[in-house]
Amino acid sequence: MSFLRILEMLGVAVFAISGALAAGRKSLDLVGVVITATVTAIGGGTLRDVLLDRHPVFWIADTANLWVIFAAALGTVIYSRRWPPPARSLAVADALGLALFTISGAQIAQAAGLGGVVVVIMGTLTGVAGGVIRDVLTAEIPMIMRRGPIYATACIAGAALYLLLEMVIPRDVAAVVGMACIAALRLAAILWELTIPVFTLGEPRNRER
Amino acid sequence: MSFLRILEMLGVAVFAISGALAAGRKSLDLVGVVITATVTAIGGGTLRDVLLDRHPVFWIADTANLWVIFAAALGTVIYSRRWPPPARSLAVADALGLALFTISGAQIAQAAGLGGVVVVIMGTLTGVAGGVIRDVLTAEIPMIMRRGPIYATACIAGAALYLLLEMVIPRDVAAVVGMACIAALRLAAILWELTIPVFTLGEPRNRER
Amino acid sequence: MSFLRILEMLGVAVFAISGALAAGRKSLDLVGVVITATVTAIGGGTLRDVLLDRHPVFWIADTANLWVIFAAALGTVIYSRRWPPPARSLAVADALGLALFTISGAQIAQAAGLGGVVVVIMGTLTGVAGGVIRDVLTAEIPMIMRRGPIYATACIAGAALYLLLEMVIPRDVAAVVGMACIAALRLAAILWELTIPVFTLGEPRNRER
Repeated sequence: MSFLRILEMLGVAVFAISGALAAGRKSLDLVGVVITATVTAIGGGTLRDVLLDRHPVFWIADTANLWVIFAAALGTVIYSRRWPPPARSLAVADALGLALFTISGAQIAQAAGLGGVVVVIMGTLTGVAGGVIRDVLTAEIPMIMRRGPIYATACIAGAALYLLLEMVIPRDVAAVVGMACIAALRLAAILWELTIPVFTLGEPRNRER
Repeated sequence: MSFLRILEMLGVAVFAISGALAAGRKSLDLVGVVITATVTAIGGGTLRDVLLDRHPVFWIADTANLWVIFAAALGTVIYSRRWPPPARSLAVADALGLALFTISGAQIAQAAGLGGVVVVIMGTLTGVAGGVIRDVLTAEIPMIMRRGPIYATACIAGAALYLLLEMVIPRDVAAVVGMACIAALRLAAILWELTIPVFTLGEPRNRER
Repeated sequence: MSFLRILEMLGVAVFAISGALAAGRKSLDLVGVVITATVTAIGGGTLRDVLLDRHPVFWIADTANLWVIFAAALGTVIYSRRWPPPARSLAVADALGLALFTISGAQIAQAAGLGGVVVVIMGTLTGVAGGVIRDVLTAEIPMIMRRGPIYATACIAGAALYLLLEMVIPRDVAAVVGMACIAALRLAAILWELTIPVFTLGEPRNRER
């Protein structure tokens, strides 16, 4: 089993947990929990595979991903009934999934022979899309669109760092450093409210309809 | 014309009616009605075809689907102006579309040689995705995400029943039984408020941001 | 560089500007601005390419599109800080993007050998989908779903006009006329509140749940 596949499977598991926790916040029923966990866990990789024309998409090619998701979702429900999860558990699961998926997505785009800017975009998209779909389906404003601690920025920085390092150090080491960068940036951003400047459109010169 | 194609065309028609009724609830204009009807009717099958790499997607391959949608949407508008549709008409059209699309989606996944769990997921996704897209576009929380009468659960149960029966009785009979199961479960769920247990996340141990 | 590619690149630029302006209305941060601009600019063409199985999708095939988007988004931010954009600037950028993308989408569908109704749908979808995704991500009701000045109707009319003209006059001339028709219809609709009739569902005969 390759390093890349292990990364992806781990990402699937933590995103499934983050999806199940988000569903618990919304008091969904058990099938809703499994659906939210599944969509969060496979959304990014599915979009990546469809855009890159990689068929069969990863969870059809390897249904072990689905069983991991079901187990992670049910495990989260059972665990949470006994021990309420610590605060920020959703944020931590989400940050880890972001890190794992962004780098695995970047590596897959790289393997498809794509250039730097597309590799960074595909990595970021693989990382954020599952959470975006989860937020849209549960009628939340997607995290990438909220003002607040940096989110997609961490993915972009980590994917770019990975691409740079990968030219001078072994690929798997560069991948681990890139992932650590993403998770650390995202968690630091939440702890210390790291943000980047906001663009607010001034009053238009005439009244806007 | 195969049994499968008849199922799909019928599903397209009832989902177009359900989309047009949903648009009428929102007082959309006539083009908005046709767009909502179209998106509801082709959303699930299109997502299925893209995920399974079936090209051309079904409504490009067979544009008769589009004319059925336009006729169903306009027919709904004309009918509704004279005779306000009976209560629950939207729920009934939606339940029938769900039943038809879930089983036809499952059969297509099966024909692609996919395993049981993917067949059930593809069936469910074909059944629910059109309604999800309709709800997202009209800024409603998708029905699969609302607490309340079971919805996706009916698709999962019906697709699984179809798969089991299809091993012992003729496929078309199994398909009809699977569809009847989905429509009956969904309508019974609405009538008698059948629900499944809810997962509510307890208060986190520390305050969550 | 073909006429079609010039159209598409121009459409990408004006939709990126419209996305950046929409992000400014929501006070997103700079990465949010670039993401919104990118999604608005590539959403329609990406959906078209995936549905038509055209791979690599246009912005992976030609990454110049991405640099145009980044430049247009940053240019919009820098410009808007000094000179607040005139009222209706967003509406005008959006109308131009709509015109350019609808006709280029229609031409691509035509080149794929598709029939009239699919060409009109693909054109309209290429025109409106980027804005729909932008609206869904920023938690707005998509413009195609709002009552108010005609929107998708302009695309449908322009694409149909293009198809008719293209049988009797040179294709590029027909394309320009089709685009002018879309932009003019959309801007006239905003100025003079052109609408089409609304479908409102009467009170159901029994109380609806």
